[in-house]
Amino acid sequence: MVTEQLEAAFHPRSIAVVGASGQPLSFGYSFLRHLVDYGYRGRIYPVTPKWPELMGHKAYPALKDIPATVDYVICCLPASKVVDMLRQCPEKGVRIVHLFTGRFSETGREEAAHLEEDILGLATELGIRLIGPNCMGIYNPGEGIAFGHDFPTEPGRVGMFFQSGGSCSEFIYYASLRGIRFSKVVSYGNALDIDEADILEYLCEDSETDVIAGYVEGIRDGKKFIQSLRRTTPKKPVILLKAGRGSAGAASAASHTASMAGSFAIWESATRQAGAVQAQSLADMIDLTVSFCCLPPIRSTRVGILGGGGGQSVLSADEWDVAGFDVVPLPDDVEEAIRQTLPELWWGWIKNPVDQSLLPMEVVDSDLSAEILRRMSRSDNLDLVVANTAVGGPFSKEHLAVYVRKYTEDIIEAGKTGTNPVAVVLDTGPLGPKEFDDERWRGLSEARTKLIAAGIPVYASAGRAARSIHRLLKYHRWREALRHG
Amino acid sequence: MVTEQLEAAFHPRSIAVVGASGQPLSFGYSFLRHLVDYGYRGRIYPVTPKWPELMGHKAYPALKDIPATVDYVICCLPASKVVDMLRQCPEKGVRIVHLFTGRFSETGREEAAHLEEDILGLATELGIRLIGPNCMGIYNPGEGIAFGHDFPTEPGRVGMFFQSGGSCSEFIYYASLRGIRFSKVVSYGNALDIDEADILEYLCEDSETDVIAGYVEGIRDGKKFIQSLRRTTPKKPVILLKAGRGSAGAASAASHTASMAGSFAIWESATRQAGAVQAQSLADMIDLTVSFCCLPPIRSTRVGILGGGGGQSVLSADEWDVAGFDVVPLPDDVEEAIRQTLPELWWGWIKNPVDQSLLPMEVVDSDLSAEILRRMSRSDNLDLVVANTAVGGPFSKEHLAVYVRKYTEDIIEAGKTGTNPVAVVLDTGPLGPKEFDDERWRGLSEARTKLIAAGIPVYASAGRAARSIHRLLKYHRWREALRHG
Repeated sequence: MVTEQLEAAFHPRSIAVVGASGQPLSFGYSFLRHLVDYGYRGRIYPVTPKWPELMGHKAYPALKDIPATVDYVICCLPASKVVDMLRQCPEKGVRIVHLFTGRFSETGREEAAHLEEDILGLATELGIRLIGPNCMGIYNPGEGIAFGHDFPTEPGRVGMFFQSGGSCSEFIYYASLRGIRFSKVVSYGNALDIDEADILEYLCEDSETDVIAGYVEGIRDGKKFIQSLRRTTPKKPVILLKAGRGSAGAASAASHTASMAGSFAIWESATRQAGAVQAQSLADMIDLTVSFCCLPPIRSTRVGILGGGGGQSVLSADEWDVAGFDVVPLPDDVEEAIRQTLPELWWGWIKNPVDQSLLPMEVVDSDLSAEILRRMSRSDNLDLVVANTAVGGPFSKEHLAVYVRKYTEDIIEAGKTGTNPVAVVLDTGPLGPKEFDDERWRGLSEARTKLIAAGIPVYASAGRAARSIHRLLKYHRWREALRHG
Repeated sequence: MVTEQLEAAFHPRSIAVVGASGQPLSFGYSFLRHLVDYGYRGRIYPVTPKWPELMGHKAYPALKDIPATVDYVICCLPASKVVDMLRQCPEKGVRIVHLFTGRFSETGREEAAHLEEDILGLATELGIRLIGPNCMGIYNPGEGIAFGHDFPTEPGRVGMFFQSGGSCSEFIYYASLRGIRFSKVVSYGNALDIDEADILEYLCEDSETDVIAGYVEGIRDGKKFIQSLRRTTPKKPVILLKAGRGSAGAASAASHTASMAGSFAIWESATRQAGAVQAQSLADMIDLTVSFCCLPPIRSTRVGILGGGGGQSVLSADEWDVAGFDVVPLPDDVEEAIRQTLPELWWGWIKNPVDQSLLPMEVVDSDLSAEILRRMSRSDNLDLVVANTAVGGPFSKEHLAVYVRKYTEDIIEAGKTGTNPVAVVLDTGPLGPKEFDDERWRGLSEARTKLIAAGIPVYASAGRAARSIHRLLKYHRWREALRHG
């Protein structure tokens, strides 16, 4: 069973880094470095004939020289040396190997593709399962295993399978800024043996994983993958990004992970039918992951928006509407807050989205916005509350900082005490070091950090928020229908 | 002629702020504050019965009390007091007034709409033109006139008409982070008198404006606007964002600037035929403005991409392909650089996009990337060069900082010395204060700031870059066809 062997890779009692190195700009160095840095608690065996010791761990010239069993091997050897290493695995008890080693079939060279096939044959013969080749392997923060610098050390609930190691790192870096944390992640490269379906199957059963995200360049076995998907999606959302939307991407995938991208249209319809949530880009995939991690199922499409300024209200109403939400009239219980505080404005001019610039400036600073937000978050006539954030308005940076700080607290409060989920649209744009010291941008950045820490999903634009949250809604509707149908 | 009167508003020798105030959280304060802060060099007359002097300028109880002529009035009075103020204009020589004053037809109240009509009638009778009401008026950095805090003080080449003052500020804040600077900007609100077509007409003739951007909620006079557009687009690009894509946005526009959004489909086809460049969102509008300001006309669709990592290469090839570009085979002159430096890799594995993670790590740090970039920027077989930037790769933050610094210099050099335009895709994600002090994110932010300062367009994603640059290409093709047809 591959699940059993993946279990050994995720929770190994000992790891050998074969091809370990003392050269900081080599992968043989960094895989070892990460085990040390992330605090892996099992036994670490650097394997290299060149160094007697690395990072405080005794090194061995060859795998077979290790005087103990080994649960998991990270292999950084050149392609030509892999066969010899594999032959040493059985006597050490190794049943799963991560081949970081690349330059196989992805090079397009016939002899490299043959070598790859030979390796698969030998591994099968020896009862060894392979992750890769040409990949970054495993990130499991709970065990202190990682393949990049400065990944989050604390675990979370997102499990991933990524055909590209580089894009996987990108995802981890950017998503962690949005508050996402991970359970188990596998970069699986050429998928010579263990493929996307195997990992999906594992994550489907994994009690530490609630949300699954995968990036795929080409599918090894379409039928097998769709079957895994069908088994998983009724239990957990699976967010998928597929390369090959254009012919150039498909061609590029071949030289990257030796993938045949196949027909994109067939992929789309097959995975949609199997209940997958389809992402359009890496950024979109991160938005979706944020939505699925931070929001409960949304009951229906009625959205209440606290709009920031006027133009922002108008444009955001457009985005939510076009994405499939209903920007319903301001519920009576919310309008009541306006009537009580500003009787001269309550005759129906203030609508949904609530244009905050219509509120007299001294009131913006008061509790009216907070009261509107509070009532929206408790209203039975809404299913979702969205708080937009303005970057300027009439405020100097000092006033903005005060206003944003108060607004942020109000949002967190509404999120905690309300019955409707709350989402925030806040963009700081591309900040440079000069802006880091500017109260306007620093204040907005601090607000975002606080919101994220409080578990509130924060999006860079209304369109991105609306499009991703609508897919959350659709997924849960699909799952409900499946349950009752 | 409205152009003449707009000229007086853009270059006034004196400005009266009527309804000026000493209360920092009022617009009567901030409009005056801005004239002082941005260094307006003409005469400043605060008009208020409540203060004898404001910010070092003698105040007058009424407009008529000013002992000199006045070129331009910024009116912050309540709606009920506007008629009386207008009657005092002729004797002071005022021929154009900005009515910041709101709560007119946008409130939906009949008596407010009547008052608005009365004001228009009176202004027409007195020969006075009106900007607004319900708007932020003019930002002209060259003259020291502005309507928001911390706008750029140095002028640039982008002219704008924005129906929403809040969205206009948003645009200015975010676009200025991307290196955009402005010639003349008008937030024109309800467009009771001067409308989008009048301002467009002015910017069409304005020698300080090269690129025009406009945000419109509703069109006052469709025929007039399309005529202005037709006159302008053969000379200068006009980037347009229109509210009302969804019915919710259309409804919201009515209570914001009393606009009838009209049929979005008709708008789209009419403005497209008139040569406008259509933006889908504020962020898209900023991407387009960056493309039109920082890039020359692109001859054709052949794009060469230095891809960052493998997955990034694949996904970015997809984006450029889907947007309408040709990700052509790596030109021979570029491949030659690989042959010379890395003979063992030159057999055609390295393709376009160039997957930098395929280059041995010690070479990434060397001059091979720079040489590929240099050759791409000079190749006759490409029309555009794109440099992707990785956030991680195999590098620790210290190594990444060194690598990114070098790569940034290489890109700037290629941009300076090459014949093909160069664009960059670089995203730092949503940074918080903790990241400001982190070498990884700070280094990437510094790189972006340097690239922007060097005039290189920087986009947050391949998709956004490709989609906006393709509209630049289409616009210039359209203009060429017009010229030769």
